[in-house]
Amino acid sequence: MIRVGIAGYGNLGRGVESALRDAEDMETVGVFTRRNPASVKTATGIPVYAWSDAENMRGKIDVMILCGGSANDLPTQTAELAAYFNVVDSFDTHAKIPEHFEQVDAVSRAHGKISVISVGWDPGLFSLNRLYGQAILPNGKDYTFWGKGVSQGHSDAIRRIPGVKDGKQYTIPVEEALERVRSGENPELSTREKHTRECFVVAEDGADKAAIETAIKAMPNYFADYDTTVHFISQEELDRDHAGIPHGGVVFRTGTTGLSGEQKHVVEYKIQLDSNPGFTSSILVAFARAAYRMQNDGLTGCKTIFDIAPAYLHPSSPEDQRKSLL
Amino acid sequence: MIRVGIAGYGNLGRGVESALRDAEDMETVGVFTRRNPASVKTATGIPVYAWSDAENMRGKIDVMILCGGSANDLPTQTAELAAYFNVVDSFDTHAKIPEHFEQVDAVSRAHGKISVISVGWDPGLFSLNRLYGQAILPNGKDYTFWGKGVSQGHSDAIRRIPGVKDGKQYTIPVEEALERVRSGENPELSTREKHTRECFVVAEDGADKAAIETAIKAMPNYFADYDTTVHFISQEELDRDHAGIPHGGVVFRTGTTGLSGEQKHVVEYKIQLDSNPGFTSSILVAFARAAYRMQNDGLTGCKTIFDIAPAYLHPSSPEDQRKSLL
Repeated sequence: MIRVGIAGYGNLGRGVESALRDAEDMETVGVFTRRNPASVKTATGIPVYAWSDAENMRGKIDVMILCGGSANDLPTQTAELAAYFNVVDSFDTHAKIPEHFEQVDAVSRAHGKISVISVGWDPGLFSLNRLYGQAILPNGKDYTFWGKGVSQGHSDAIRRIPGVKDGKQYTIPVEEALERVRSGENPELSTREKHTRECFVVAEDGADKAAIETAIKAMPNYFADYDTTVHFISQEELDRDHAGIPHGGVVFRTGTTGLSGEQKHVVEYKIQLDSNPGFTSSILVAFARAAYRMQNDGLTGCKTIFDIAPAYLHPSSPEDQRKSLL
Repeated sequence: MIRVGIAGYGNLGRGVESALRDAEDMETVGVFTRRNPASVKTATGIPVYAWSDAENMRGKIDVMILCGGSANDLPTQTAELAAYFNVVDSFDTHAKIPEHFEQVDAVSRAHGKISVISVGWDPGLFSLNRLYGQAILPNGKDYTFWGKGVSQGHSDAIRRIPGVKDGKQYTIPVEEALERVRSGENPELSTREKHTRECFVVAEDGADKAAIETAIKAMPNYFADYDTTVHFISQEELDRDHAGIPHGGVVFRTGTTGLSGEQKHVVEYKIQLDSNPGFTSSILVAFARAAYRMQNDGLTGCKTIFDIAPAYLHPSSPEDQRKSLL
């Protein structure tokens, strides 16, 4: 059994706790938290340790899965824990991946461990489909659409507007754009043509709703480049109808082959998720298996989904994989 | 530049010849044929060599791509050429993959080379999606649909019926079945519920068309378990409307996460191909790049798509991949 620890216990940590129960070859050692351990109660009753206890668990945990956020937690936590364990994180600040990679790689190499960073679906499975698509159809174009799903960043941006009590934002791919790509047309699509944004807003009592709507729609980077709709609803409606964290998206690669590019091909990878953290945590668990096995094979250092042979992810042996999956 | 040879010059060999022109880091050495080389004229003017010359090209070719058939060619040819070169083949007889793997692996290891077998889309990219799907959503089910596309085996079966002059068969996924899977319903689907078969048949003059139709529909394994439609058309119509070799298909993984399986997820990988050999040969070329790089990294032996880190397939460096693709 692969012994796994969970560092951080928010939505993602709870998802990993659940996903580990579905992994036949893994056992959960416990949760590590920077809060007071006595204040944290886990959903399945697994033990809770203080963050500072992690160092003393060297040799008792094969892989630590980091479940913190990319903005404030992972930039320091992954490298910290990489000194003691094989680690897996979901660092998703695309622009800072090279820097994060270098930092974590140095620690993992120095300690003979494996680290896997930026695991999830984007970065992650979507990246993988962009890479396979480009490698196989060099004469082509790729398209990434996100949604329909909740964007945490955009929801936060809404909630920072004066007069807004609560709110949630859905990113929605434009169906017509999807169909144009699917048809093999290879369109050039503007930001506005690819996605729309839908906001559900709870206003404070007496707030100026028209001013809120204008403030949302005019917000640069977040909303100004999109067709945005704003719905004002009650807190009860928000809690009842928008409690989930669904998400999804599509990666396309369209391209041509043949001596004069006469053969068109369309490759489409699409996900529809009831729960973004539920799915992401399941991916993290599969890559924890890979991290453990790679270290057993004598490998060290930082890896991304691009560097990991798919066989490492699946619980069955390479022989069984060739027999029943290939 | 990676120097690549093409062993066999049918539809697939011509596709590889074309795909190699799109690979910026590869150059084509030539075609090897068991026919009289003087009788073979290549589409792009690349040289044609006798099969027996291959052995003398050791050191002048980095990877040989085998373009023969799985029934009669690859079972002997891949192992033969694996003694001289890194090799890539598209062996697709699923049941015989383990045996083929063992045989080719022994030769490649003995000669310090890499071989990659069963490259294509099924086995190949579809297998990969089955593996990732199972690894990430262990509580789930996968579904593979083929088509709409031409099945060579079924077309051959039609042409063997007395009174049939020519014919082509399309495998078509049942739209309702696709929708049921997409909805997350996790249906149990019979063979008949998943695919239909459509046949375009040219009858010989005076042949009994009703008897031909009955013979097709009753053919065990090939047609008896399916809803099959038969259209009689002229040779001119067949040549005009059915000259291409389109294909495609979908792999789904549907599954649940959450402590009580309350979160449903649907992952869909779909391809639509104008030309089956055009797409397959592009995949072969990407894996030729991987074979060359893996041998450069000191690896040897037989690999499948499961054993190859995705980074090996893409022409850009791992640093650039992390920066622009992840």
